[in-house]
Amino acid sequence: MSIAEADLPDVPSVEAWLRGLQDRICAALEDRDGAARFRSDTWRKPPDSTLRGNGDTRILEGGAVFERAGVALSLVDGDRLPPSATAARPELSGRGFRAMGVSLVLHPRNPYVPTTHLNVRYLVAEKAGATPVWWFGGGYDLTPYYPFKEDAVHWHQTARDACDAVGDSIYPRLKQHCDEYFYLKHRGETRGIGGLFCDDWNENGFAASFALIRAIGDSFLPAYLPIVERRTRTPYGERERDWQLLRRGRYVEFNLVWDRGTLFGLQSGGRSESILMSMPPEVRWRYDAQPEPGSPEAELLTDYLHPRDWL
Amino acid sequence: MSIAEADLPDVPSVEAWLRGLQDRICAALEDRDGAARFRSDTWRKPPDSTLRGNGDTRILEGGAVFERAGVALSLVDGDRLPPSATAARPELSGRGFRAMGVSLVLHPRNPYVPTTHLNVRYLVAEKAGATPVWWFGGGYDLTPYYPFKEDAVHWHQTARDACDAVGDSIYPRLKQHCDEYFYLKHRGETRGIGGLFCDDWNENGFAASFALIRAIGDSFLPAYLPIVERRTRTPYGERERDWQLLRRGRYVEFNLVWDRGTLFGLQSGGRSESILMSMPPEVRWRYDAQPEPGSPEAELLTDYLHPRDWL
Repeated sequence: MSIAEADLPDVPSVEAWLRGLQDRICAALEDRDGAARFRSDTWRKPPDSTLRGNGDTRILEGGAVFERAGVALSLVDGDRLPPSATAARPELSGRGFRAMGVSLVLHPRNPYVPTTHLNVRYLVAEKAGATPVWWFGGGYDLTPYYPFKEDAVHWHQTARDACDAVGDSIYPRLKQHCDEYFYLKHRGETRGIGGLFCDDWNENGFAASFALIRAIGDSFLPAYLPIVERRTRTPYGERERDWQLLRRGRYVEFNLVWDRGTLFGLQSGGRSESILMSMPPEVRWRYDAQPEPGSPEAELLTDYLHPRDWL
Repeated sequence: MSIAEADLPDVPSVEAWLRGLQDRICAALEDRDGAARFRSDTWRKPPDSTLRGNGDTRILEGGAVFERAGVALSLVDGDRLPPSATAARPELSGRGFRAMGVSLVLHPRNPYVPTTHLNVRYLVAEKAGATPVWWFGGGYDLTPYYPFKEDAVHWHQTARDACDAVGDSIYPRLKQHCDEYFYLKHRGETRGIGGLFCDDWNENGFAASFALIRAIGDSFLPAYLPIVERRTRTPYGERERDWQLLRRGRYVEFNLVWDRGTLFGLQSGGRSESILMSMPPEVRWRYDAQPEPGSPEAELLTDYLHPRDWL
């Protein structure tokens, strides 16, 4: 897909929407948790560094519903787009850039409540005398520990409705991109049941692209909270907790071995604590741990952790 | 350093020594643990795959002293040396290879007992009509959770004595290489207090190089077991356990983000469970966790996790 240069990017509107999204999500999660509050860690990179900018990393830990929840806003700019951003479009190599986004990872306490991740971001590549080039990216995905078909259907239906409201052909592409991206090649399994994911997105100009990213961001709470509501009071014991902690190990493996954003951030001098807020609060590894055949844990592996059409 | 082509490699002797090393280490660790035993998971890659070979992954879990201990032997061969092995020596590109080694990671239960890692390996690159090219690699390093100077001195003194028995100038180079390799750039700290590390080692021919690798492998138990002996009965509580679990998070970060062997193995289709036996059994992450100034935990960070001459 080519990068549109026709529209002028409206950076203030995107920033305002991102700030509002972070606020709304944090308020809803605090309300849902009922016990713990987010603390806000605002940071600023010195103006003379190669990567400048600021951010607001909000963390809730030790909650009743959420064992760890991170919702981070960052707004950075730099003199040169990093190699990972220009590999697919050498014509932008050497441009300055602005990048802003909201990232979120929620690790619930109850193993029947899925872990989830959202990221929405906006990039503008600039050069003196040239039209700015911009694009959006992001999406959300769900990582259940136990198989509930109605949760999977609700999740994907909400994602589909959000995309369909913006354009007909969008949903299948974002669904497929998500299945492909969140894949642990060394395990031969997906991270979870997927959702939406896009990158380099500028289709039909700024207004339409921003509308899609808003549709994604704004549909996150309606996609996720009803699942929390349905599962967070389900009783569980050491068996379910152990399974959750082992599966969280896979989450760590994906983020540290395969996730381009995490790796790029850590290897290029990003802010480690903000990047690693995605790590689960507690994790286990055990040699060759396999669920009992016929168990719900086994059903998750065989029926949920491969790309599948849920609708 | 150039790769010697003068000597013919004695593969059977190296294999016999590696098998003996695995047996001796496992027997000593079982004896020290007293409660749990190693189970052996032998595996074999099908002869028609691009990476052939077999191995014996031995795991002890839930012991009295060791929460998880893995001691793995592997012997593989392939049609083409992987790119990571030939980047520094393009003249070997396209050669077939044999690789064999023992890897070990020990995660003790008591936070006062350090985690440790050893790897010794031997590679031969072969081509029809050409003299085989061979080299050794490996070493061992120590990752304490609490600062004990006498442990650090004993560890490095044993390592130094082992190297000095083989050659005068060896120890400082292997010590420095270890400090440089086991470094978490995104945290600005070393993984632990280091030890020995070498790669592409063929100095002074096969007999001398094999003698060095034997000196490393054979000095591991005398370097590590006295530290276990000294610390494993020290009482500890939730504070020390919590610190140990948080620091184990750093161990995971190093292995999955920076360790070339782990990454190469996972990304190239190696045996995931054997590679990931290095993961700790239980791990925690907490946002921006910092030890109290003046505490032993703070002393570890300031005085132990930077390269230092202990002797």
